[in-house]
Amino acid sequence: MLFSDIASHLRLSFVGKDVEIDSMNELSLSSPSQLAFAVHKRYSLELKSSKAKAFLITNSLIEHLPLDSSYIVCEDVSLSMAEATKLFSKKPLEPQLPNAVIGQECYIDAIAKIENGAVIGSSVTIMAGAYIGTNVTIGDNTTIYPNVTIYRDCVVGSHCIIHAGTVIGADGFGFSHTKTGEHVKIHQNGNVVIEDDVEIGANCAIDRAVFNSTIIRRGTKLDNFIHIAHNCDIGEHSLFVAQTGVGGSTKLGQNCVVSGQSAFSDHLSIAPFSTFTARSGVTKSITQSGGVYSGFPLMNHREWKRLQAKIGKLND
Amino acid sequence: MLFSDIASHLRLSFVGKDVEIDSMNELSLSSPSQLAFAVHKRYSLELKSSKAKAFLITNSLIEHLPLDSSYIVCEDVSLSMAEATKLFSKKPLEPQLPNAVIGQECYIDAIAKIENGAVIGSSVTIMAGAYIGTNVTIGDNTTIYPNVTIYRDCVVGSHCIIHAGTVIGADGFGFSHTKTGEHVKIHQNGNVVIEDDVEIGANCAIDRAVFNSTIIRRGTKLDNFIHIAHNCDIGEHSLFVAQTGVGGSTKLGQNCVVSGQSAFSDHLSIAPFSTFTARSGVTKSITQSGGVYSGFPLMNHREWKRLQAKIGKLND
Amino acid sequence: MLFSDIASHLRLSFVGKDVEIDSMNELSLSSPSQLAFAVHKRYSLELKSSKAKAFLITNSLIEHLPLDSSYIVCEDVSLSMAEATKLFSKKPLEPQLPNAVIGQECYIDAIAKIENGAVIGSSVTIMAGAYIGTNVTIGDNTTIYPNVTIYRDCVVGSHCIIHAGTVIGADGFGFSHTKTGEHVKIHQNGNVVIEDDVEIGANCAIDRAVFNSTIIRRGTKLDNFIHIAHNCDIGEHSLFVAQTGVGGSTKLGQNCVVSGQSAFSDHLSIAPFSTFTARSGVTKSITQSGGVYSGFPLMNHREWKRLQAKIGKLND
Repeated sequence: MLFSDIASHLRLSFVGKDVEIDSMNELSLSSPSQLAFAVHKRYSLELKSSKAKAFLITNSLIEHLPLDSSYIVCEDVSLSMAEATKLFSKKPLEPQLPNAVIGQECYIDAIAKIENGAVIGSSVTIMAGAYIGTNVTIGDNTTIYPNVTIYRDCVVGSHCIIHAGTVIGADGFGFSHTKTGEHVKIHQNGNVVIEDDVEIGANCAIDRAVFNSTIIRRGTKLDNFIHIAHNCDIGEHSLFVAQTGVGGSTKLGQNCVVSGQSAFSDHLSIAPFSTFTARSGVTKSITQSGGVYSGFPLMNHREWKRLQAKIGKLND
Repeated sequence: MLFSDIASHLRLSFVGKDVEIDSMNELSLSSPSQLAFAVHKRYSLELKSSKAKAFLITNSLIEHLPLDSSYIVCEDVSLSMAEATKLFSKKPLEPQLPNAVIGQECYIDAIAKIENGAVIGSSVTIMAGAYIGTNVTIGDNTTIYPNVTIYRDCVVGSHCIIHAGTVIGADGFGFSHTKTGEHVKIHQNGNVVIEDDVEIGANCAIDRAVFNSTIIRRGTKLDNFIHIAHNCDIGEHSLFVAQTGVGGSTKLGQNCVVSGQSAFSDHLSIAPFSTFTARSGVTKSITQSGGVYSGFPLMNHREWKRLQAKIGKLND
Repeated sequence: MLFSDIASHLRLSFVGKDVEIDSMNELSLSSPSQLAFAVHKRYSLELKSSKAKAFLITNSLIEHLPLDSSYIVCEDVSLSMAEATKLFSKKPLEPQLPNAVIGQECYIDAIAKIENGAVIGSSVTIMAGAYIGTNVTIGDNTTIYPNVTIYRDCVVGSHCIIHAGTVIGADGFGFSHTKTGEHVKIHQNGNVVIEDDVEIGANCAIDRAVFNSTIIRRGTKLDNFIHIAHNCDIGEHSLFVAQTGVGGSTKLGQNCVVSGQSAFSDHLSIAPFSTFTARSGVTKSITQSGGVYSGFPLMNHREWKRLQAKIGKLND
């Protein structure tokens, strides 16, 4: 798509060369063929070093653009960005793609649905009511239990177990907001990547990334009702107990243990080998590995136990 | 159905004219053809002004009945009410209804199920494994992702997106209780109405009303794992982040923002433009619009932050 | 299977007679044909009185074995136990079993799936997209709503209602851990038993037992999003409000009432007629029946209310 087409769609004018754009991405991750965007002055340094050639920006950021950039000045970059994502969103179905390729010794139930473009490894079991979307890839020896839904373009590794009712790749929860309080969808054009040896419990939901991938790394095990928001990166060999939620773009290191009903805010970075007791509420990043945490607000587990004793004494 | 038939079913006798009854409703909302009920003296004023012609009541409330009422005196009104709801409950399937009507340019997957009496607008996408119940109505340009279930009589608007695994219109959680501790189902004879431009995440559950409708109003967006109980009314352009629950009959004004793992008790009324930070536990109605709240028990966000600092100091 | 086969699979040597083993079980529940295991010295008494004939044990427990026991000394009993469960796990499908037996006057939707060996009572409704696994038994007059999944070997009673999206019998969350931090699946070889007159809301998950059964007893009603972990035993006529979770092997007595977003740790025993207000966090067993509890850490409801008032005053 030409940059000029994007400008027309946004009903705005563009400055610079009319470059060819194939997708969108965050400022720091953009390639020369991707449309980037900068909402706020705090991104001026990232803007300067971005590899993108075309940008949505506010007027005040023009001076920080790389040389030879093409750009559109937006009154509300966030809103224009949301409108632009629609241009790159994909329909759930692509009937023109070739039929799915199924490996050897698979069991695919007659009332499972596998869309075109999917590639299924060998010795895979896909049970009744499971849905495998357009272009999904599934590795060898993986079991997909009944009524699982895997949205288009997602990747599931080998030796994985996905329990019934789990949804992989639904849209992340992302909206921009008009001045009159309406919410404009940021189309979620990324995917989910589940690495090898992952087990996901019943009725979980792992959202697709807005750009790029939400990742569940090798050997991680999720209990039931786990919510993983868009663009999370869950480290290898982690354990998540039931009813836990992780906010968007939060990244956990390897071998974290998260007990039931815990939650993480968005955009955090959590050191490996961190342990969280039940109902931990994590709102800040953790840089030191190996700690044990509790409570909301979060604190060291020992400190939390001591605090609970102190609080209990208020009733004396 | 005749009032005398209801009395027979309840194994009780009735007083007054044998009026024709077509459904049940709450005291204040009843029409002349609906059976109403009054459990407690605090409803005596509502009883006096009710438009219903037939009632289930306790002995002590007879004097507050409107003139010319027909009534059944019950030892346990709540229990008799539950038993009466069974008479008005509908079977999930009605094979005698005409086939569903499907609009133009729809995609309906071969292993989606659409029951009789349903009416589907134009340019609607209904993916594999989705279930559209008896008499359900779906507006134009709406997308129903795989393995969504929409129970009978529910209404979904135009330009809606319902993500995989979500259940719309399952029975609300309502029971009356016998003296020996058993639970008697209050049949949930209402429905769910989802207005236009609503997006509902993966694996949500929006329960049908006991009478009338559970309503999600125009432009509201729900993340994953949202629980909306029977008879809630969720205002326009609201945002609900993951794993949040709303108790029965609670009403939120427009443009509320509810962060993750929050919860609302039943029968609350929440002013518009209210914001709730993560894990808010709301147990009282809010009358002033535009506030920001936190904590459980709930308080102003600033107050909560100050309190957390004070609590932290207990450990010094 | 011979005990020697198990030893080979574990790449360990065995001592004693080469007995025939048909399954595994906990120490205190094992029969003579079951493989038992003892991880820790605190089980030495249970070990002495076990009816099992074959054991996985640590070196230090040999002296506590019953007379004539066969045994395998394991460096890591927990890990060897996990590896052994794999030998007794069952495939989801058994095509060689006879077709399902369906009772009279059932409605089974054409796109419901019923696996071989299942036995369905009379007047049962099984709606589109529901999955009834191998050898599942369903009693008379039960309704299974769309997109419910019932895993193999589970038992559902009569007059039950299972709402859409609920998953019964997915694997419990159980793993042993290698020294290098990988998680080895403990295959969940038990089942779920749902007794008569149980109603389960939308999108719940009741996990199958590791050995024996997870049980939901007669007349109990679950709201939406209830998580019941493996080997729980939920007493008769209990009520669970939405988004509540119960940890593994926890046992509740009859007529407990559990309000929304509450949670129970694993291995607890809760006295009958206990009531828990919203967001209770239960980490200790309760021996006295009839109490009302709140908070996390849990306390008597009155004490909790008094404490909240005291805490609120910290801000004065």
